[in-house]
Amino acid sequence: MPELRYNIVTREWVIIAIERARRPEEFARHGPQRTEPFPAHVGTCPFCPGNEHLTPPEMFRIARNGAWQVRVVPNKFPALDAQGELVRRSTGLKRTISGVGMHEVIIETPAHNRPLALLSEEEVSLVVQTYYHRYGALTADPRIAHATLFRNHGLRAGTSLQHPHSQVVGTPIIPPQVRERMEGALRFYDEAGDCIICSVMADELGDQARIVAQNSDFVAFVPFAALSPFHVWIFPLRHTASFLETRESELASLARMLRIVLRKIHFGLSDPDYNLTLRTPPREAHGSKYFHWYVSVIPRVTPVAGFELGSGMFINVAPPEQSATFLRNTPADPS
Amino acid sequence: MPELRYNIVTREWVIIAIERARRPEEFARHGPQRTEPFPAHVGTCPFCPGNEHLTPPEMFRIARNGAWQVRVVPNKFPALDAQGELVRRSTGLKRTISGVGMHEVIIETPAHNRPLALLSEEEVSLVVQTYYHRYGALTADPRIAHATLFRNHGLRAGTSLQHPHSQVVGTPIIPPQVRERMEGALRFYDEAGDCIICSVMADELGDQARIVAQNSDFVAFVPFAALSPFHVWIFPLRHTASFLETRESELASLARMLRIVLRKIHFGLSDPDYNLTLRTPPREAHGSKYFHWYVSVIPRVTPVAGFELGSGMFINVAPPEQSATFLRNTPADPS
Repeated sequence: MPELRYNIVTREWVIIAIERARRPEEFARHGPQRTEPFPAHVGTCPFCPGNEHLTPPEMFRIARNGAWQVRVVPNKFPALDAQGELVRRSTGLKRTISGVGMHEVIIETPAHNRPLALLSEEEVSLVVQTYYHRYGALTADPRIAHATLFRNHGLRAGTSLQHPHSQVVGTPIIPPQVRERMEGALRFYDEAGDCIICSVMADELGDQARIVAQNSDFVAFVPFAALSPFHVWIFPLRHTASFLETRESELASLARMLRIVLRKIHFGLSDPDYNLTLRTPPREAHGSKYFHWYVSVIPRVTPVAGFELGSGMFINVAPPEQSATFLRNTPADPS
Repeated sequence: MPELRYNIVTREWVIIAIERARRPEEFARHGPQRTEPFPAHVGTCPFCPGNEHLTPPEMFRIARNGAWQVRVVPNKFPALDAQGELVRRSTGLKRTISGVGMHEVIIETPAHNRPLALLSEEEVSLVVQTYYHRYGALTADPRIAHATLFRNHGLRAGTSLQHPHSQVVGTPIIPPQVRERMEGALRFYDEAGDCIICSVMADELGDQARIVAQNSDFVAFVPFAALSPFHVWIFPLRHTASFLETRESELASLARMLRIVLRKIHFGLSDPDYNLTLRTPPREAHGSKYFHWYVSVIPRVTPVAGFELGSGMFINVAPPEQSATFLRNTPADPS
């Protein structure tokens, strides 16, 4: 019999649909290879070395032996505008805010054909350090209320640009969804006296059925009420409200864990499209006891359909325990 | 400059991204034709006439001259199970409900190659009458707390079945999103003394900039804070809380309006993938002054990406006024 499960962190219900469950292998991508056949350098790619003049002026870089390894530039077609004044208007039922904000692109590697999953530990570590640096820089701007850090891999995940990159968008408001989850976490803290993320983590570590990988500082697992197949959460083991409270050694640890998770997904599901997002609260919640940042990796192997749009509930055709077992057993370094 | 707009009904913010705005024509689908080249009858299709034995036993049909025009059958791979008992469990942080519910398929026409947009007024009317009938039947079942009626058209919208069909899922709970929107509507009613849908409709009719089409009983428009390109809402002009309060003449009127909107989308954007959903409250809100059912049509012309998943906010690369003007000017019956 199918089962409805409640995601206590996101406060969403998902139907784990046994009748339509598919084997993990059936979710693998069928499409042209996106790594080797592609050249390491593409003449027309604005993110490839030698084409630096095709991007807006650089904000940040990490270089090794005189060549950049990671570059951060403003998005050439930004969703929000870094110039201008923050103006709120309310006319009748219509509320608007001028589109002030930041929209940056993090170019993760000079190599056009090496997605994040295929970078070395050292290279992923530079990307994670850049995440930390840019998240700090954006949220220090008084016009920015919240920053969203994310990565789109493949067309279904919303990118047509092959060259590996992440993005960070600083918005003039705290997104309502972020606020709602913080309120939920605060209420949980008031009732249970503990951080909701710490509690869920303790539960998952006790249960073990949905654990994908673990190291000294992080644990990766498929949530009990995962909304979609192979959805992975990466939680820091130490209670830290904000990503900006992370120590240097933990950043390196995060890079290792992220790489392992992405490689398991890459090799296990034939390089599927996916989104990655780092969920961390706005400044005001830094240091708080009730919130706890984390990373979410969402393979886009099934589309969001009318039922999800119409109800806000989800149908997951892969039991989380099966997804987790599959990823746990997929080697991060296939020989 | 881009603009953030607040959707007062769904309580979501959207960034109307001017810098990345695209012309309406650029959203048109590029893919093989999905109508004429396909035959009207496919031997292996479980929804084509002659293959009735391939579906579970029929629940409902509308026939003309001895042949069915619309058929309703249980989904062969239901998300929820019609048998069994409703059991709620709560163990530590884990809450579950047994997956009791209904999942029906509404086969809209015997013709494999005629999507809803290309059916006649009379044929669309039979589909809408079936919606009404099944919605009533499902919500009369005491185990069903809420029914979600939807239509997936094309792969991006979540269906691989070509034969035109809608679905209705009866869930044992009221989806949290539905509850939250009802609460928002109730609060608006308490504050403003009016139905939020009636108020938004009056605003849109006064403004006219985003109206797509109107008839005696319905108005179709692109919402001021549409989350995605060409998103169309169809509101009943008369205040009616539930779809089940709709009169027979209004059902015919809805069929005409739905057909016009779908044809404008079909011809204007080259038969794009889309979702359709009917938003109507659960039984308990029938007859209420604060809620008002409506139809949502969501062309799936841009993917939901990491920013949306990470923030719950949306980036719309088509200004709603432009989307509306384009659809208003696209003839429903091109010659």
